[in-house]
Amino acid sequence: MRVEIWSDIACPWCYVGKARFEKALAGFAHRDGVEVVHRSFELDPDRAKDDVQPVLTMLTAKYGMSEAQARAGEDNLGAQAAAEGLDYRTRGRDHGNTFDMHRLLHLAKERGRQSELLDALYRANFAEERSVFAEGDERLAELAVAAGLDADEARGVLADPAAYADEVRADEREAARLGAGGVPFFVLDRKYGVSGAQPAEVFAQALAQAWDEHQPLTLLQDGDGGGDGGADVCGPDGCAVPRS
Amino acid sequence: MRVEIWSDIACPWCYVGKARFEKALAGFAHRDGVEVVHRSFELDPDRAKDDVQPVLTMLTAKYGMSEAQARAGEDNLGAQAAAEGLDYRTRGRDHGNTFDMHRLLHLAKERGRQSELLDALYRANFAEERSVFAEGDERLAELAVAAGLDADEARGVLADPAAYADEVRADEREAARLGAGGVPFFVLDRKYGVSGAQPAEVFAQALAQAWDEHQPLTLLQDGDGGGDGGADVCGPDGCAVPRS
Repeated sequence: MRVEIWSDIACPWCYVGKARFEKALAGFAHRDGVEVVHRSFELDPDRAKDDVQPVLTMLTAKYGMSEAQARAGEDNLGAQAAAEGLDYRTRGRDHGNTFDMHRLLHLAKERGRQSELLDALYRANFAEERSVFAEGDERLAELAVAAGLDADEARGVLADPAAYADEVRADEREAARLGAGGVPFFVLDRKYGVSGAQPAEVFAQALAQAWDEHQPLTLLQDGDGGGDGGADVCGPDGCAVPRS
Repeated sequence: MRVEIWSDIACPWCYVGKARFEKALAGFAHRDGVEVVHRSFELDPDRAKDDVQPVLTMLTAKYGMSEAQARAGEDNLGAQAAAEGLDYRTRGRDHGNTFDMHRLLHLAKERGRQSELLDALYRANFAEERSVFAEGDERLAELAVAAGLDADEARGVLADPAAYADEVRADEREAARLGAGGVPFFVLDRKYGVSGAQPAEVFAQALAQAWDEHQPLTLLQDGDGGGDGGADVCGPDGCAVPRS
């Protein structure tokens, strides 16, 4: 069974939601039969790559919050993160464009290190003093290496703006098709959706329900039983010879 | 709705089956709502890259057919291909390893040219005088360009054996998980499977059935209606503020 999780590195609820989902998955009896894929979603896709702002400035400027509201929101998020055992720096973080990080996550997916890189990016963004936005590609390459990727390969992807760009956009189109207007957004077996950083118990229930209802493929046959139905196939032992 | 088609360039029934499926799709009322993805399957994954053989030699050596049987099989395949308007060279074709072609098809997928490249590879393998196996990377790069890809990008992928290798293997693992022992293998909406180059009418029926039964995602909610159910999400307009 496959679980797809749409998220953005700049999304605090995604950081918290990943931990909650993984807590549920760790307690799920069939966890070895669950494949998790992380998919791209940008909260702020139109922001220029070099437009980096303190989070509090962004919250007051873009969303019209008062500074007190913005600070209170960050404090609350910090408390929710702490409850999941996650570090969260409630003051002084930056906000910026995450497109290159998503491209790098697609490389990491191919190399089987996607969850590790996403953890590293979240930690770098939400918990560490250094900005993950302001130091350029070398900082991202360093995080990629920490997640187990090859440094030169990561640098190559970062230096080529076309690398995995289509895959990021394809994920985002898919999110729109599935009706995900915000993140985190969890899709189980393409059947059930869970929106938001729900409590671990909600994810546990969703995993159990989707697992119970998971259906193998139904093979359709040539309805009339005649023709070449089912026969016109090539396998490791050769190709079927057509009946004349 | 998504249709995934597992196939190999060295599989004559895949060549015929693609044409039959596309005939059904062209006549399907909701064709604009159907996304087609081609996935990798190698009929002969253990064959060395430089081990190129005439098809008739391979059929007699590997599958123990008599030369007369092998020739008759090829003649029959040629007739089936012709019935779909496809050229098919029944004598003198080569057989070889298709891994690099599958890697290239994954690049083409990212660039939105996958179906075009698969058509070009099929044509080159089944219809043209020149061997698609014996002339090395430059021949494949040429076909990639004919399908609308960038020559240098295609050469780069061909020169790097790791490029898209994991994606080819992931497709092959997925085929095994779905129970596909041979190709072509068509999967509609991850719900229905169609094995083999069935008549176009079978594909038309399968498309209609899968379309009619296609379900949008069911959104699961926090069961007790309390907690932070549904609220802990970030969207283009900001992040929800946790209720305390």
